[in-house]
Amino acid sequence: MPLRSQPENALLEKIHRAFSAARRTRGGRRARALGDSLALGMGDDAALFLPTPGRETILTCDWFLESTHFLRDQHPADALGWKSLARAVSDIAAMGGEPRCFLLSLALPRDATGRWLDAFLIGLRRAAKRFSCPLAGGDSTQRREILINITVIGEVRKGRALRRDRAKPGDLIYVSGHLGEAEQGWRQLRKRGGRASRTEPGLKKHLYPEPRLALAAWLGEKRLATAAMDLSDGLSTDLPRLCSASRVGAIINPAGLPTVRSAAASAAESTNLALNGGDDYELLFTVSPAHAKKMPASFAGIPITQIGEITKAKKILLSRVSASPQILRPRGWDPFR
Amino acid sequence: MPLRSQPENALLEKIHRAFSAARRTRGGRRARALGDSLALGMGDDAALFLPTPGRETILTCDWFLESTHFLRDQHPADALGWKSLARAVSDIAAMGGEPRCFLLSLALPRDATGRWLDAFLIGLRRAAKRFSCPLAGGDSTQRREILINITVIGEVRKGRALRRDRAKPGDLIYVSGHLGEAEQGWRQLRKRGGRASRTEPGLKKHLYPEPRLALAAWLGEKRLATAAMDLSDGLSTDLPRLCSASRVGAIINPAGLPTVRSAAASAAESTNLALNGGDDYELLFTVSPAHAKKMPASFAGIPITQIGEITKAKKILLSRVSASPQILRPRGWDPFR
Repeated sequence: MPLRSQPENALLEKIHRAFSAARRTRGGRRARALGDSLALGMGDDAALFLPTPGRETILTCDWFLESTHFLRDQHPADALGWKSLARAVSDIAAMGGEPRCFLLSLALPRDATGRWLDAFLIGLRRAAKRFSCPLAGGDSTQRREILINITVIGEVRKGRALRRDRAKPGDLIYVSGHLGEAEQGWRQLRKRGGRASRTEPGLKKHLYPEPRLALAAWLGEKRLATAAMDLSDGLSTDLPRLCSASRVGAIINPAGLPTVRSAAASAAESTNLALNGGDDYELLFTVSPAHAKKMPASFAGIPITQIGEITKAKKILLSRVSASPQILRPRGWDPFR
Repeated sequence: MPLRSQPENALLEKIHRAFSAARRTRGGRRARALGDSLALGMGDDAALFLPTPGRETILTCDWFLESTHFLRDQHPADALGWKSLARAVSDIAAMGGEPRCFLLSLALPRDATGRWLDAFLIGLRRAAKRFSCPLAGGDSTQRREILINITVIGEVRKGRALRRDRAKPGDLIYVSGHLGEAEQGWRQLRKRGGRASRTEPGLKKHLYPEPRLALAAWLGEKRLATAAMDLSDGLSTDLPRLCSASRVGAIINPAGLPTVRSAAASAAESTNLALNGGDDYELLFTVSPAHAKKMPASFAGIPITQIGEITKAKKILLSRVSASPQILRPRGWDPFR
């Protein structure tokens, strides 16, 4: 009797195989190749993780749902595999930490357990290798639509985590990279319809975002950032969250935002995208004026731009030349709006 | 300008409030009441957890989905809150560990963010207190149907985790509690339709399962169990998983199963429920014959029953008096069947 004859077992084994291929096996027991801290991977009731002494464990989880966050007929499955992990790992970056391992919860329609799943796992495995974040376990079930939930476990030196609630009035506000690029790609794809090609110009950041792990770890190690978070829902939605946690306000110079230059968008449209476009997974962080001189113009090729300043008054203002400051309204991604 | 005016923020704050009420607050920063190891709770990009020296971290996640795992018009929201955490905590018990904190991923229809959510959070908070497992963070979004995913973080003394893959031929097989009780309750509820009352006789185990934390911790501390797992999908589905992981088989005496005695079910039906009914969250474990004398008939009021023996031959057999052994087919819960 084949003990593993059941469909759910078969699905779990397919996922297991895709990831254990990347590991060495010795004497029938799993060796530690992808992650040194993973004491027991998939196949038991739960995974075992060996924490590093002197580190705090970072915990984050993230929904990634068909129809809500992606469309099966427009987004390539391998990009969804990459992005599902990258966006959760971005929360580890936002804390100044290093990813250690992840759990995958997957609910799939029966017709997605073949080629779709194969391609999804290729993208997921590529991301797992890039971020040194092996699969530790998960859960699977059947469902009409594809549902993904990812939990990432990370570590950060005790007391060095980048938090949201430590920004002070007078701190300078910075962002990494260009803002609005992912949203611009998504608009381009929505407008023309059909399935995105994996290499289509303008879609790279929408399909394969890169969490800013190295920059955030540097900011944490050097104690340069007073507060930080990742930009997942758009600056106009996320900056108020940082300000609210720190009980401060902010003033932003819209003309100084690192927008995406494109023939397709006017300057006003680019600014609008930079303020309200979601899914960029860039870092938003604050630095005390005393440390401003230490901030480079770019880090490992990623531009770093000062976009404004933290204020005592609990308002978020846009300051334009030759006009009085306007209040910035949150117009980023909100699933309940 | 109210910085937290957005609907998603409002939902997160409702959840946050429900849980932070249970904690002391001192000087504007959260004190550690519900969990000593939780360094930073909700409200940042991720949670921070301080691991206990000498312990391994246990990681598990669990789907709990409307239509697939529960029905909104039949299951009381507070029972869903309890059960969503209890079933994930059961995986921590299955490893012989103690729960430390959990992450809640919640996708809700707009009309469930009011009274339904309030009742759900009451049940969830009750479970969090009972299991000493505070909420550490999570993610929320909007969705037509209620989607729940729970990640639980636990700890176990290094090297003491109860695994599935260490059962040896000759080991005796035990289960805790009664088997088939949850499934019997679910059948009763399905049959008559309508919403379950929270105190309805026969529904307790279906609505409010109790993970076997104390028993499993005792088995692990005393090194009594060679292998263990929790019974979530039914004995006929779960026992093959334990056997497969350990590369062994088993022989079970169906007449010796701790069934539920009930006027509504014949002896054959009770045995069938005990073999194939899911959702019991009892412990299935193996003990070497040398330690069999140390196994009590009950532990803290929970019966402990020897139901069979591990064999070298990789088959799962049912041994009936006056009949040759039959092969046990997996007929428990499988979402893909």
